[in-house]
Amino acid sequence: MIKTFLLINLFTYHFISKYAMPESEFGYINWLQKHLKYNSDVLVGSGDDCAAVKLPDGNLLYATTDTIVGGIDFIVPSKKRGAGVYYATPEQIGYKSIAISLSDLAAMGGGFTKIYALISASLPKKFTKPSFTHPLFKGMYSICKRFGVQIIGGDLSATKGPITITSTLLGISKSKPVTRSDARDGDAILVTGKLGGSILGKHLSFTPRLKESTLLSRHYKINAMIDISDGLVADLNHILESSKLGAVLDELSIPISRDAYKLKGKPMRHALIDGEDFELLFTAPLKEAVKIIHDRALKTPVSIIGMVNNRKGIYLISRQGEVNRIKPEGYSHF
Amino acid sequence: MIKTFLLINLFTYHFISKYAMPESEFGYINWLQKHLKYNSDVLVGSGDDCAAVKLPDGNLLYATTDTIVGGIDFIVPSKKRGAGVYYATPEQIGYKSIAISLSDLAAMGGGFTKIYALISASLPKKFTKPSFTHPLFKGMYSICKRFGVQIIGGDLSATKGPITITSTLLGISKSKPVTRSDARDGDAILVTGKLGGSILGKHLSFTPRLKESTLLSRHYKINAMIDISDGLVADLNHILESSKLGAVLDELSIPISRDAYKLKGKPMRHALIDGEDFELLFTAPLKEAVKIIHDRALKTPVSIIGMVNNRKGIYLISRQGEVNRIKPEGYSHF
Repeated sequence: MIKTFLLINLFTYHFISKYAMPESEFGYINWLQKHLKYNSDVLVGSGDDCAAVKLPDGNLLYATTDTIVGGIDFIVPSKKRGAGVYYATPEQIGYKSIAISLSDLAAMGGGFTKIYALISASLPKKFTKPSFTHPLFKGMYSICKRFGVQIIGGDLSATKGPITITSTLLGISKSKPVTRSDARDGDAILVTGKLGGSILGKHLSFTPRLKESTLLSRHYKINAMIDISDGLVADLNHILESSKLGAVLDELSIPISRDAYKLKGKPMRHALIDGEDFELLFTAPLKEAVKIIHDRALKTPVSIIGMVNNRKGIYLISRQGEVNRIKPEGYSHF
Repeated sequence: MIKTFLLINLFTYHFISKYAMPESEFGYINWLQKHLKYNSDVLVGSGDDCAAVKLPDGNLLYATTDTIVGGIDFIVPSKKRGAGVYYATPEQIGYKSIAISLSDLAAMGGGFTKIYALISASLPKKFTKPSFTHPLFKGMYSICKRFGVQIIGGDLSATKGPITITSTLLGISKSKPVTRSDARDGDAILVTGKLGGSILGKHLSFTPRLKESTLLSRHYKINAMIDISDGLVADLNHILESSKLGAVLDELSIPISRDAYKLKGKPMRHALIDGEDFELLFTAPLKEAVKIIHDRALKTPVSIIGMVNNRKGIYLISRQGEVNRIKPEGYSHF
């Protein structure tokens, strides 16, 4: 019930206070949800990583849309800014615009036989020169080629504002959706890759976990899945709220990335809170989880980081064995 | 070969000089088209009103994406602006964001059994209050309800720039695509409704011609179709360039709207050049065209306005019987 109209696409905690919409906005989210009623062909509507729609022949159509905005989701080199800012190249911007939506597709369970993209770009005049647009589109094409995505449409607009790119990805699959809402009491919580510090570059160059997702849902029983865009704790909270469950995380088993150590603040805090790692966070019966680890089915590392339970809230067991409740922070939903 | 990355969404001639991208941009359009190669499942790719993709069971999936930007596609009331500006209400902005894409679906031939929408909105802080967002979304929902569109996804972002809304519409249909490229020598040219002066309000409140399109393609042989977003002459030129043909228009039979008379300049010029009428412009064998008029199949008026021929260019026969070549103006493609 979280994404889709409900998330501001900001990747650092820093921006939240500046851009978060007022609390009173909850009013219209409720209003929105009340108005979104679906027929039986819509298996998953607004609120998960992707929508899932039953096609006439029984195949499923998965669809997701994401917008990235200059100054928020990426920063373009500018004379005004000082040192310590991580700039995005036009190619990285193009890459990211597609990759975030591919990550959403992955979070539904993979198995796509076809993937199509539609891209809308609004560009301010100074970014309409081929020196910018050429590598921008090259970034889009390179990732599309790599993942077999066909770009079937788009729209280019002028704007007086920042670069704004919306990508809509459509995937055709026979696989049932792995949603956020089917975690079970007693499930193990697993995560791919290593977490934290994505602002140092990973948020512009991550690999969407489509292969991993396809392998996982084909060979193992996965109950719930999400991609980490808001941060480990925040996204786990999305699963738990949708599934009406709680969880305990084990600090010792949370995989921390090298970049998390390079930033100010505790690396563990970065692993828990930083957004835009775009790794898969999923739950599975413990037996299945152990099999996944044992089989080494994925080339990407996978870690069991905790357990789902039927109490409310997320608790963290520290290295010292202390148990503390942690807030589902890292992101503000308005 | 025109839309999709290639059109700037501006609706008045006035804005063109300000926003049009430089001529050199043609370079990367060529580059783009070279890189967009499709498999056999993509019947219509980027460059028509919608893409059309063959689904595994033979149904077709039509998809289109469009962006509207504040200050370009609509103008929000502001203290800075003077008199004589046509402001859009939040409800009209919401309505238009969906309606333009529905018009694109209509231009492919209609017959949709299902229509789904994904909406991405980037809003500056001052437009995040319920007093704005509530009617904005209400405008979206009202048109979706009217046309049986299910909103299955979306994304809301913060922006420092103008309001930017991208809607992606997906339609499922058994009907073959009516493209821009299948006009025939000798076809009659037809148009629904009346043209010109949409800036006085129609561009915010038009009715997408879905019913008309479905009726036309179900009961008559339509060869080529487009919706008028760039202007009659410009959009006719899209059909003719794609079909490698020319045309003669009869000034006396071009239907001029009342609003075209209210604006400065010749009403006929507005009918020929103004964008965003969102009427259907289509070609059909003369016999079929006469039948369409005779049957009064549509509640909306339909006019035969000219003929397709195999010479290059668009010629206009004036009231006085003079024949003049007219430039495919009304829009600048970059």
